[in-house]
Amino acid sequence: MANIKDIAKMAGVSVTTVSRVINNYPYVSAEKAEAVRQAMKKCNYQRNINAVHLSKGKTFLVGVVVPFSNHPYFGLLIEGIANAALNNNYKLVLIQTNYEEVKEIEALTMLKDKQIDALIICSRICDWRVIEEFIEYGPIVLCEDAREKNISSTFVDHYKSFSAALNYLHQKGHSRIGYCIGRQSGTNSEQRDAAYKDFLKKNSLTYNPDFIFSGCFNFEDGEKVVTDLVQMKDRPTALLVTSDQVAAGILTCCKEHGIFIPEDLAIMGFDNQPISKVMHITTLEIPLVEVGRKLFFQAMDGETVSHEEIAVELIERETV
Amino acid sequence: MANIKDIAKMAGVSVTTVSRVINNYPYVSAEKAEAVRQAMKKCNYQRNINAVHLSKGKTFLVGVVVPFSNHPYFGLLIEGIANAALNNNYKLVLIQTNYEEVKEIEALTMLKDKQIDALIICSRICDWRVIEEFIEYGPIVLCEDAREKNISSTFVDHYKSFSAALNYLHQKGHSRIGYCIGRQSGTNSEQRDAAYKDFLKKNSLTYNPDFIFSGCFNFEDGEKVVTDLVQMKDRPTALLVTSDQVAAGILTCCKEHGIFIPEDLAIMGFDNQPISKVMHITTLEIPLVEVGRKLFFQAMDGETVSHEEIAVELIERETV
Repeated sequence: MANIKDIAKMAGVSVTTVSRVINNYPYVSAEKAEAVRQAMKKCNYQRNINAVHLSKGKTFLVGVVVPFSNHPYFGLLIEGIANAALNNNYKLVLIQTNYEEVKEIEALTMLKDKQIDALIICSRICDWRVIEEFIEYGPIVLCEDAREKNISSTFVDHYKSFSAALNYLHQKGHSRIGYCIGRQSGTNSEQRDAAYKDFLKKNSLTYNPDFIFSGCFNFEDGEKVVTDLVQMKDRPTALLVTSDQVAAGILTCCKEHGIFIPEDLAIMGFDNQPISKVMHITTLEIPLVEVGRKLFFQAMDGETVSHEEIAVELIERETV
Repeated sequence: MANIKDIAKMAGVSVTTVSRVINNYPYVSAEKAEAVRQAMKKCNYQRNINAVHLSKGKTFLVGVVVPFSNHPYFGLLIEGIANAALNNNYKLVLIQTNYEEVKEIEALTMLKDKQIDALIICSRICDWRVIEEFIEYGPIVLCEDAREKNISSTFVDHYKSFSAALNYLHQKGHSRIGYCIGRQSGTNSEQRDAAYKDFLKKNSLTYNPDFIFSGCFNFEDGEKVVTDLVQMKDRPTALLVTSDQVAAGILTCCKEHGIFIPEDLAIMGFDNQPISKVMHITTLEIPLVEVGRKLFFQAMDGETVSHEEIAVELIERETV
């Protein structure tokens, strides 16, 4: 491909003149400008936007790290980020990690290499010390409680919201409460587990590891939970399910096994996804699209560190 | 930020020498290499990957155009593309268009501006003549039957698959068959509508516009369909639903209204999403993750134009 030097040579002008013509600057004679345009046409010259970005130091790309691109929780976050990005002429670079550390480091390296202007990490596997090393290269924003850290974050206080949900179930008469979660590691999961253990302690209830179901991400994972429940001698009477999709799956499979909701088992979802409304699932609303929007604007504002706690709301329906 | 010229000046060497040190080329004396490294350290020099991409003419980014980022159908396509991209050291630039023409043109312009190496269009609103103008700038791949066009495509023959589904329902004794679809425009929708009309004609059945439900994208859209069905005097006895999510929504809401499946209404989904398995929905399997993978490799192979037709398979379960 012809570059700017080739064009200059062909048109018999300086490189500066070619640059001025390309960028529509003044102070170029009509004659020279025409010669440049003819030369560009002749060798089919195309402006390379990377050269423009190189000179401006901006790419108008924002990186978004998600463990799975195809999951309703991250889908809503991405929707919020994508809408805000579109309105601000930014594009998203989607980095799906499958919770592999090396993929997260690749995303951080994109920031270091200035391939993206900022990085939003929706959920991470890397240790904080790894992330910390990349702060100097550009804005990094976390979707978790990072109030103790020197980067911006938008988050739900999962300790507080889990405690509120557990107390609600307890008030409804439940003392055998279990919960379903995606992965057991991770900041959010640790907060939830702490809330669970503190709740049991406060109410003098015993901890039963069989009441905790991990690996619950999607609708179809509800089937596994019900298969386990059916085989249990002493079932929980209530389940706190950290995803409405999983709650919907549990609800559907319980019906097939003759387990009545909420009589035999109370179910409480999380997020207030559309499926919870259609299936009348009691849930804790998390405004994920709004969280995504806030994350985008924090990423754009690289100058200041801010922390936004998002309030959750209990939506009472028919499954508790 | 210091650039390569500043480094050269500071180290007292030529720009070429600095470039050689940065890119680990041989033929640099240990002394000069050390001077360059010291100068780079002193002014905190960071390699700008856009400069590297500029010189190599590659970005290792592939653009993916989707109308909605948060939809299970596109979720599975993105998953297939994302996995193939990860394994080939490519990143995705996700361009959510909401079916706005201007956003699609922005994506095409990214290809023209060399901000991405190739573009995969999962679903489009732009006229073919608009897309055609951008072919010269890099590989564009379509997820629709583009056998008549000079760009690669991976697609399902929606005329053929819709006809097969309609004939299956007809064999099961149905002659009052309706269908649910996302949008009525678009190549795939036009093919389906043609198959529907040809089916009616062949079997001497009358066309009833009330039997076609559009705007059906998500689980919650099933509610609207059932609300309409309940108010109809002469309901269809079978529905072909172009999304398993919508089929699941219809199934859930029918139960609430005392409409028995399949006795009162047969339901046939599309895609074979996990939700269809859990809810025992008869469906046409489309291997979307595999489609995504094929689209990625077609985008990478900019030299040859290929067309891959993906076979669908009827999965008989309990809703027909």
